[in-house]
Amino acid sequence: MTLDSLTDEHLDRAFMALADPVRRAIVARLSRGPATVNELAEPFAITKQAVSKHIAVLEQAGLVSRSRDAQRRPATLVPEVLEKLTAWIDTYRLTTESRFRRLDDVLAGTHVSTPTHRKDQEK
Amino acid sequence: MTLDSLTDEHLDRAFMALADPVRRAIVARLSRGPATVNELAEPFAITKQAVSKHIAVLEQAGLVSRSRDAQRRPATLVPEVLEKLTAWIDTYRLTTESRFRRLDDVLAGTHVSTPTHRKDQEK
Repeated sequence: MTLDSLTDEHLDRAFMALADPVRRAIVARLSRGPATVNELAEPFAITKQAVSKHIAVLEQAGLVSRSRDAQRRPATLVPEVLEKLTAWIDTYRLTTESRFRRLDDVLAGTHVSTPTHRKDQEK
Repeated sequence: MTLDSLTDEHLDRAFMALADPVRRAIVARLSRGPATVNELAEPFAITKQAVSKHIAVLEQAGLVSRSRDAQRRPATLVPEVLEKLTAWIDTYRLTTESRFRRLDDVLAGTHVSTPTHRKDQEK
């Protein structure tokens, strides 16, 4: 996965990977440091097999990488991909908010030009 | 949906809603202003029924609201929920990045205290 821009397929996988409470808890845990399947399975009432599957989903989404160390194979969070997701969301959030601000400005301008409609003058 | 914090169920729905290229394109379009199903269906090679279903998914996720105007029922993007998603992601991204920075500092400190291993001195 290139980090410059996420393709539609990468975004599909990454958002889908985050659409699960156990995988989000794994992301939260890994943000504090790499961990093995055994370490990740401990706080959850699910099997190591289930944890392994969740990690595989996160790995295919590019959100987690795993070391080549066959003995431990700890999983590590990849913050660059999380950043790409917030960048995608923020692009549209900021566009929307700036449009709302312009609308507010227009409405404020309208009120000033038609003072008889101003609520504060009706009191 | 309360905007103070998204529950696991809300996060599930919101991330799942974004894990689809057509729904992301609808979010992109709505960031530029409200639109009806007819207007949203135009650029896509899919039926209005399919667009309606996608909007319903976005609406259930709290990402989109629809006006009560039965004639038009335009869909509007809800930037506050997008903001909650980036807040969730950024919490763990920033924790990871700050951990990486501390690790870098430790490694840099190690290099300084054992100058014979510094690469720039080997040249």
